[in-house]
Amino acid sequence: KDDATEAAASDIDAAIDELLQPAPAVLDSTKTAAEAVAFLVQSEAVAEITYIFIVDGEKLVGVVGMRDIVLAKPGQPLADIMVREPFAFKSGTGVDAAVRAALARHYPVYPAVDDAGRLLGCVRGWQLFQRVVVEVTGQAGAQVGVSREEQVTTPILGAFRMRHPWLQVNLLTAFAAAFVVSMFEDTITQIVALAAFLPVLAGQSGNTGCQALAITLRGLTLGQLDEYPVRKLLRKEILLGALNGVVVGVVAGLAMWLYASYSGEPNAFMLGLVILVAMVGACTGSGIFGVIVPLTLKRFGADPAMASSIFLTTFTDILGMGLMLFLASAILL
Amino acid sequence: KDDATEAAASDIDAAIDELLQPAPAVLDSTKTAAEAVAFLVQSEAVAEITYIFIVDGEKLVGVVGMRDIVLAKPGQPLADIMVREPFAFKSGTGVDAAVRAALARHYPVYPAVDDAGRLLGCVRGWQLFQRVVVEVTGQAGAQVGVSREEQVTTPILGAFRMRHPWLQVNLLTAFAAAFVVSMFEDTITQIVALAAFLPVLAGQSGNTGCQALAITLRGLTLGQLDEYPVRKLLRKEILLGALNGVVVGVVAGLAMWLYASYSGEPNAFMLGLVILVAMVGACTGSGIFGVIVPLTLKRFGADPAMASSIFLTTFTDILGMGLMLFLASAILL
Repeated sequence: KDDATEAAASDIDAAIDELLQPAPAVLDSTKTAAEAVAFLVQSEAVAEITYIFIVDGEKLVGVVGMRDIVLAKPGQPLADIMVREPFAFKSGTGVDAAVRAALARHYPVYPAVDDAGRLLGCVRGWQLFQRVVVEVTGQAGAQVGVSREEQVTTPILGAFRMRHPWLQVNLLTAFAAAFVVSMFEDTITQIVALAAFLPVLAGQSGNTGCQALAITLRGLTLGQLDEYPVRKLLRKEILLGALNGVVVGVVAGLAMWLYASYSGEPNAFMLGLVILVAMVGACTGSGIFGVIVPLTLKRFGADPAMASSIFLTTFTDILGMGLMLFLASAILL
Repeated sequence: KDDATEAAASDIDAAIDELLQPAPAVLDSTKTAAEAVAFLVQSEAVAEITYIFIVDGEKLVGVVGMRDIVLAKPGQPLADIMVREPFAFKSGTGVDAAVRAALARHYPVYPAVDDAGRLLGCVRGWQLFQRVVVEVTGQAGAQVGVSREEQVTTPILGAFRMRHPWLQVNLLTAFAAAFVVSMFEDTITQIVALAAFLPVLAGQSGNTGCQALAITLRGLTLGQLDEYPVRKLLRKEILLGALNGVVVGVVAGLAMWLYASYSGEPNAFMLGLVILVAMVGACTGSGIFGVIVPLTLKRFGADPAMASSIFLTTFTDILGMGLMLFLASAILL
């Protein structure tokens, strides 16, 4: 389960500096345990203190936990009981690396230092996890071309600048689907019932593909695909796509049969069969694309979620509508 | 920012019991501070101890932090220095409620008790946040009808049972779009170029709507819509939809003009104009649906993400393709 948060954090670009808080307890290493107790007694923020950060001048040299003070003799200098060279985040450390470190340690709070080792403040463990939550909530939008930086409060022109380029990409891919449909204009003119089923084939293969895409992305985000073999996932999604395609295809095929009969089409039954076969083929292919699209994006070093749904529906649109029109042309004309 | 995790946790059904760990330090309330120190000195798990849970028999009666022991006199009984009636999770408490409590307190660890007040173990704060991360990664899939319980490792038949019902819902909604298209069969027969632009209108309005949907869902998940007025978001998404629709519509309209001229359509320029106007209308409407669909699901007590993309694309398909076909019929026939 630790892998989950670690993998989820791996896309975060921010540095821990944006989470820095002032350290509530900083004492010089020459102070004694008794002086530390006196400091705690008179500290107003005692409830917030988990560790005392020990410095030489400004440089962080150690950390003393409450347990260490409990176990110390009153006259002992803090330098004697502190944990030396304590784990600390360097300024500029990415939140992703910090989360990895936090998952290995699970301290409630981490000191942060600059390159010279000077204490800058501290980062609380829960802040790191919270940052991961914010990041992960951006994933669904990323699939349709919404930047992970955009939130409800983003001004309209900023949102336009970030979203619009992906809509142009989407338009370009829609033209590809339109081109495929246009190749079958004669078929549509002769069997106009097919036009009504264009959105049915596109919609079903698109949604089936998006389901496979979502599970693949979740697996990537939670780090499950490190253990679960991609080949197995691919086999599963192909089978699932086929299974869903058969059941949905039977219903859609029956609908086409009824609709075409009612419209007086001569080959109503065969048209229904075309829908069934096209649906099985399109949904099976959609399962493949749902797995392959995010993995391909990742292989090329891109965010596996980014615009994944746009790329996926390009393939599923072409496959779903193209297969229906091709089969109808080949069998019925 | 605390609201973020709290809101994100609000959909989790699990109870804290699944996160329970044994408490590493439990002492009777009659023991003294000196005895507690002795216990700590000989404890092997001292690094894991943040609090000592104080019991009378099995009943949790108090909590002693390391700080309390630092500040105590050696002979003081723990009953004198402990925090009485400490905050504890009851067995069966939902993870959502636990996260809310944890965000108010930010303790590193919480005791858990049964109904009789007996100490059952403890839950670490980071485990709660981690559970939220796993939950939030399920949101993208929920939009297309993938249960938040499904993961990469879910067996194929389980996945089929959970996904298939939503594909049937999607099919039903696709039939609605097909019905709208079928009403314009005559138009398509006369201007077959329109068939090729069906996927363009459906694809663009669908993706524009999914962008608005994603930002609205993110706002809900991060609790931002408690402060940001829905009316303002709606106005923003309407404007964004119109703006995106105009720019995308100009490109798509030009494409139609060229394509229709090339195909020898008599009204090529007017057809391009129909595409532009239909695109602006469809994308503007998509912005509205993107905001309204998840808020409506939430108002009816449902998960605002669940199948939201399926419902959304029903509306955007009908709006996008319907508007294009209606305008073409009204203006050109």
